[in-house]
Amino acid sequence: MRAEIVSVGSELLWGKTIDTNSSYLGRILQECGIELLRKSTVADRLEEIVQALRESVSRADIVITVGGLGPTSDDLTREAISSATGNPLIFKEELAERIREHFRKRGVEMPEVNLKQAYLPEGALAIDNRVGTAPGFILEKESKCIIALPGPPSELIPMVEEVVKPYLEEKNPEEVIIQRTLKVVGKGESWVEEAIQDLMAPQGNPSLAPFAKPAEVHLVITARGKKEIVKKMIEEVETKVRERLGEDIFGVDEEELEGVVGEMLRDRGLTLAVAESCTGGLLGYRITKIPGSSDYFLGGVISYANEVKRDILGVNGEDLRRYGAVSEEVARQMAEGVRKLIRADLGVGITGIAGPTGGTSEKPVGLVYIALATPEETICQRNVFPGDREIVRWRSSQTALDMVRRWLIKHPKE
Amino acid sequence: MRAEIVSVGSELLWGKTIDTNSSYLGRILQECGIELLRKSTVADRLEEIVQALRESVSRADIVITVGGLGPTSDDLTREAISSATGNPLIFKEELAERIREHFRKRGVEMPEVNLKQAYLPEGALAIDNRVGTAPGFILEKESKCIIALPGPPSELIPMVEEVVKPYLEEKNPEEVIIQRTLKVVGKGESWVEEAIQDLMAPQGNPSLAPFAKPAEVHLVITARGKKEIVKKMIEEVETKVRERLGEDIFGVDEEELEGVVGEMLRDRGLTLAVAESCTGGLLGYRITKIPGSSDYFLGGVISYANEVKRDILGVNGEDLRRYGAVSEEVARQMAEGVRKLIRADLGVGITGIAGPTGGTSEKPVGLVYIALATPEETICQRNVFPGDREIVRWRSSQTALDMVRRWLIKHPKE
Repeated sequence: MRAEIVSVGSELLWGKTIDTNSSYLGRILQECGIELLRKSTVADRLEEIVQALRESVSRADIVITVGGLGPTSDDLTREAISSATGNPLIFKEELAERIREHFRKRGVEMPEVNLKQAYLPEGALAIDNRVGTAPGFILEKESKCIIALPGPPSELIPMVEEVVKPYLEEKNPEEVIIQRTLKVVGKGESWVEEAIQDLMAPQGNPSLAPFAKPAEVHLVITARGKKEIVKKMIEEVETKVRERLGEDIFGVDEEELEGVVGEMLRDRGLTLAVAESCTGGLLGYRITKIPGSSDYFLGGVISYANEVKRDILGVNGEDLRRYGAVSEEVARQMAEGVRKLIRADLGVGITGIAGPTGGTSEKPVGLVYIALATPEETICQRNVFPGDREIVRWRSSQTALDMVRRWLIKHPKE
Repeated sequence: MRAEIVSVGSELLWGKTIDTNSSYLGRILQECGIELLRKSTVADRLEEIVQALRESVSRADIVITVGGLGPTSDDLTREAISSATGNPLIFKEELAERIREHFRKRGVEMPEVNLKQAYLPEGALAIDNRVGTAPGFILEKESKCIIALPGPPSELIPMVEEVVKPYLEEKNPEEVIIQRTLKVVGKGESWVEEAIQDLMAPQGNPSLAPFAKPAEVHLVITARGKKEIVKKMIEEVETKVRERLGEDIFGVDEEELEGVVGEMLRDRGLTLAVAESCTGGLLGYRITKIPGSSDYFLGGVISYANEVKRDILGVNGEDLRRYGAVSEEVARQMAEGVRKLIRADLGVGITGIAGPTGGTSEKPVGLVYIALATPEETICQRNVFPGDREIVRWRSSQTALDMVRRWLIKHPKE
């Protein structure tokens, strides 16, 4: 079973808005065992949308449109679907009533333009929108199916979860496609590829393919088949990959490094504090993305200026002068200083040159020292990261989290 | 002149990778006065790519393909363009030599598979790739033009800047499309729309359309016409919008709030320090995104735990107990405390409930107090931000920066 997505909106073509809906729908379709083979993005022009729809319907069994269901003259998807299928738009009193109700609840009178949203192509089944005013709909015609959804993710996602996904699962009950992503940190893409060279099968079933991310490598295993067997297919590949990569794999699927490290800290009852120079707060920001991180994260010091390193973290002024702010000595003292200052079990110190300026031949842009102070010892890693300012900062936060992770693996719960 | 983009790559359909290239190319095409009307994303399958290419070529004058130029069996764009146009692939010894050279420089022998990248469709003009091994190319045929570019942005962007953009400008020397984005902060979308209702012209020339971003509203002015007149068309609309919105507009186009505030601080010779609780380092991270921010940003304290607020920032323990960590009193003392501790001219304090848990009926999720301590006074703003944890944190950092900005406007350079 083949599906295509037609995204409507000039702002998507201009790149003013990143189209996260398509990625989301791609995943949902995959979970339903439906192959997504094309995604078209078209400008807000009736003739363009109609043409794209006709082409997609001719190729695919299922066409999902995203956007263009609003009340303004820019919103043309309803008209385009009517025109592409030949099904006239019909006024639905029950939809009009729901839209009026939506405004009543907010104590506002419904603008007349919103009545436009009460029209559906003949034969279409409305999908209720609990968040906004635009109903979606499903239109079946001659063994094909068009599903129209509004653009805002906060409206689209509940409609997909509650109506569209169950509908698609029923359409295609036999075969499913399942993916599992194994996430690797602390090793480069070429190293990872070499380690699993003989297991790679980009086109096989199950398939295994690597994707390089900044300071992570993702290994995606995909299996297609009957529900009962795909899980086993995935597990077999996963076991083999894990044998090769061991603790270089930090998590799977949606897991993030900051969440994995947080769980490990919580599990061991340990607390963490950070001292950040070149990352300027990024590490703390990432750690506190996780709800409940206050259980193990106490806080930190953004020691951007040298005076902050010296006066608040207690870095030795003489060492700052002799070795420079970007040095192993200073990184170690930052980690130890913040650990002591904030009375945490573990302290991290990061100092480096993120660029684009400030590098010398001896201390190039990308040079970052990262230290971890623990109750037993302080360890420090010297890195020269490639990439621009933001990539260097990201890699620094990533490496710091990975140092904590690998230390925690060696110090399991007692 | 019409253009379409064909992006090749299953990972783009799965949503594992966000397609920033298309947005970038959309902007470049627009600057060259070429209308981008469709963007298709196709799986790594030869027949899919060929079909998408044929369709795009039939509709558009210029078709840009992105991706699929690598050396592996997955990379099929070269073959697809050859098949769609009927121009056979020809081996180019000079390209092979360049690719061998690329590997020689890194001290590595060229894998045989890379020779694939030395083939081009007959009649194509190679575009040199200074970063990677995949050359791009331009193929003109029967008044149409196909431009093939590699997927990694670090390879694509230099090729576009150096070859593709000048080529397109020459193709379409008459008409240009220019956009200018005015960025508003501190006011909601509906407020902004109401203020400029009568100036709005989503379909006009020049057009004016609003786009809501988290804690920002972007007003995009677009003008199409001869080079000499479009700039003036944009300026006329901009002047009218600025008359209405004044200092609610913080910047234009690529300007970011953290950069604008940084410039103002630098201009006035003032320094800043931050005390962050619920944002966990986000504000510091954003401020230090700007190269050279060490000129005005000294550092800060991530006071996630109450003990850090009390012992390091000097927040009164009694007040913490009486009013709670999320209170105006604590925000003020955080701002004043960090200003004093770090000896900065300005201090910011942020304390709030980012959620998803921790809210009460009296102090709901989204309640954030933000204080700004200055040499003259401390001001504090109580906010109840809508949205999830990340949106609340983003809005908090945004509002903090805007408070600094508005205070600096009132305190111009002496």
